[in-house]
Amino acid sequence: MTAASAYAQSNFNRFSDQLKELLCIPSISTLPAHRADVERAAAWIADDMRRIGFHTVEIIPTKWHPVVLGEWMGAGKDAPTVLVYGHYDVQPAEMADGWHTPPFEPTEKDGKIFARGAIDSKSNVMAQLKAAESLIATGTAPCNIKLLFEGDEETTSENMNTFVTAHRERLQADVVAICDGSMSDREQPDLAYGLRGVVCMELEVWGPKQDVHSGHYGGTVHNPIQALAEIITRLHNPDGSVAVPGFYDTVQPLSEEERAELKKALPWIETEWKDVAAAPQQWGESAYNLHERIGARPTLEINGIAGGFAQEGFKTVLPGRALAKISCRLVPDQTSVPIYEKLRDFIASITPPTVRSEFRLLETGEPAVIDRHGAAVQAASAALEMVWGKKPFFVREGGSIPVVVDLQRELKTDMVLLSFGYKGCAAHGPNEHVYLNIWERGIQTMIAFYHNIGAKTQA
Amino acid sequence: MTAASAYAQSNFNRFSDQLKELLCIPSISTLPAHRADVERAAAWIADDMRRIGFHTVEIIPTKWHPVVLGEWMGAGKDAPTVLVYGHYDVQPAEMADGWHTPPFEPTEKDGKIFARGAIDSKSNVMAQLKAAESLIATGTAPCNIKLLFEGDEETTSENMNTFVTAHRERLQADVVAICDGSMSDREQPDLAYGLRGVVCMELEVWGPKQDVHSGHYGGTVHNPIQALAEIITRLHNPDGSVAVPGFYDTVQPLSEEERAELKKALPWIETEWKDVAAAPQQWGESAYNLHERIGARPTLEINGIAGGFAQEGFKTVLPGRALAKISCRLVPDQTSVPIYEKLRDFIASITPPTVRSEFRLLETGEPAVIDRHGAAVQAASAALEMVWGKKPFFVREGGSIPVVVDLQRELKTDMVLLSFGYKGCAAHGPNEHVYLNIWERGIQTMIAFYHNIGAKTQA
Repeated sequence: MTAASAYAQSNFNRFSDQLKELLCIPSISTLPAHRADVERAAAWIADDMRRIGFHTVEIIPTKWHPVVLGEWMGAGKDAPTVLVYGHYDVQPAEMADGWHTPPFEPTEKDGKIFARGAIDSKSNVMAQLKAAESLIATGTAPCNIKLLFEGDEETTSENMNTFVTAHRERLQADVVAICDGSMSDREQPDLAYGLRGVVCMELEVWGPKQDVHSGHYGGTVHNPIQALAEIITRLHNPDGSVAVPGFYDTVQPLSEEERAELKKALPWIETEWKDVAAAPQQWGESAYNLHERIGARPTLEINGIAGGFAQEGFKTVLPGRALAKISCRLVPDQTSVPIYEKLRDFIASITPPTVRSEFRLLETGEPAVIDRHGAAVQAASAALEMVWGKKPFFVREGGSIPVVVDLQRELKTDMVLLSFGYKGCAAHGPNEHVYLNIWERGIQTMIAFYHNIGAKTQA
Repeated sequence: MTAASAYAQSNFNRFSDQLKELLCIPSISTLPAHRADVERAAAWIADDMRRIGFHTVEIIPTKWHPVVLGEWMGAGKDAPTVLVYGHYDVQPAEMADGWHTPPFEPTEKDGKIFARGAIDSKSNVMAQLKAAESLIATGTAPCNIKLLFEGDEETTSENMNTFVTAHRERLQADVVAICDGSMSDREQPDLAYGLRGVVCMELEVWGPKQDVHSGHYGGTVHNPIQALAEIITRLHNPDGSVAVPGFYDTVQPLSEEERAELKKALPWIETEWKDVAAAPQQWGESAYNLHERIGARPTLEINGIAGGFAQEGFKTVLPGRALAKISCRLVPDQTSVPIYEKLRDFIASITPPTVRSEFRLLETGEPAVIDRHGAAVQAASAALEMVWGKKPFFVREGGSIPVVVDLQRELKTDMVLLSFGYKGCAAHGPNEHVYLNIWERGIQTMIAFYHNIGAKTQA
């Protein structure tokens, strides 16, 4: 056991109290009303970096929410520098969504902490801060450390594109570790080397010039909700594939070697699906297995729909408009804007003349695949094996971390995705939580990862 | 000009101030939070009946909202008795729906009063109260008058069924006038002799056991919003007819004579459609013209839909459930429960095995057609012609007044539907309003109607 590892173990109770402090702040980036809370979370992190002893700590404003950047260069200029990326913003959460405890009052129960952001991604942020603290406090850090935490990941990191370009020099590093995302098992580590991109859009349909009485006009007006449903239905084929012409044109097929590698994790991903998604049956493209559909195939999803009166009671209204939120997950070599344009043109072509529609682009993030044979990935693999006692599976992650593409483009550095979240922890849903023992292993893995990177360079 | 007619004219400003008082009370029957407001509206009406001099005024509790019943029997036992039905409850209304002025702060502008309930149906209630006042105050009432106002019409009058049965004796009358609904023109009166029934239902679809991350599970789970859209789409045929097996089985075909009569009002209904509905194009069963589709054909309407995150911003959620509010307008001889059952069975049969669905019955009201050649209809026709200077068109009304069926069944009395509302006044929608000059004509028409009924009996 290293000194840093022992330090982390003996300080773990304090670490988890600090995690709870950060979880109390409702840093919801998509809701303008929470802007001050997002800033409060950034300030909390910057304060902790100063406590830990980072040499430079800066809260850098962006067009929307600030970035927190801390630099500790105490390992000297011959030592390698590791840049770690994470995010401190969270998704919206309301009791009405089905929470058992208030989402911003962290509640510890059965070795878990329940709170919005517990798994996505404040426990990742804190794992980074506490791993760095353990190395710095014990004087054993073998690398220089740059920690970069953004506040707009849940709104697809639109600011990071320009931020990374503008601060390219400051972000220079020998290794970049992206700390977000999640693993599919509590005992079996995995290493994601692929991330899907995402494009978020909005479809609005108008019929009558305003809400009208369904008795007076029903049967003579194309109901916007119905027209919207008809359009939505035509976006998929009966086999679960997306019906938008050209949608799959630039999708890179999987090699047989990669399909074989992905298959190793399949039974294990299927078990997790049954536990967490727990839908009556699987659905989707039958030509691809569950792991491939999650990580290596693009999708089109309806994330929200609204129209008319859908509260308790009944209102016999024929609504003037209806709205759907639609997103696509993308895989290489798809890119967001052309996909949006294909959808826009297809929707325009299938919108019946009895209604009007508008399809708007809201947010984008591009897909990425990193080299799973690179040095950073190998250092992470060894660290995971040491802490978990098992070699990690290599997986294609279904979620999106848009900044990965920006960092790949600007830094051209060896990169690894290190996720300590467990998929069964309800990221984005009600009763999101983190397992304290998995989180502790995350801190230990990061400490081991720094040691592996440092050792490799000295060797 | 009769004494009562002159009285109504000279007191009109006070009448309209009283209408505004009643419009200030948000008597929304479908929302439990407004229960006290509904009771306040009932009390206001009872007070006005007492001011006018009704002999018996009673607020009669029901399982849900109270009925107000006033009886003035001063014309003597040889004079005919007229029972008038109306309702004082209103639909929900919120500024966010697109109101330009607060819905419960009546605003007078350009000869109109804007407020929720202005047209549906508090101006009808007040027309009845003020016509009765004009006759009673001038000592010229040729009939005994019973006014019956309910507070549950907007929740399909479920209580009136048992109420009418329980109070059959008290409600006995020679003529029943139903005062609700609306006309299609501001200068051309019409007389509705048909009303559609309504059955209100709710369809819920479940997929994953709770909301999940659309990146982690998208493409492997049948999205409940999409499954709901697929089900909704299959409820109609491409020609606009309802695709539910057996839906049209008991629909009485229109006779050629009735089709010809309805055709008279068609150009005029088409103009109103273009003004008020103002959708890009007409929609619906191509084998029937606009008037027939509104009044003589059954429909299936999606009144509301909700699922996932549809607010400002974006949440990449794959929702655990989605909900649609669905209603059917019915025509003779359809009945509500069998129609619900046909829908329920069809929806169960088309729900894919990848999701679960439940289809619930919420509220019902049966369709009705009354004898358009009866004495009450003829007295109303003459009154309308006198006040408007034009013979009324006979029309089939698209809306529903569930109590008509109950009154037909229990009282077996000559009946007429007298509507002073204008369809272009946004009933159930934002910026609902009433034209003061049309409302004044409504009061004058009621006075003339009472005179016609009294004269007919004396003759």
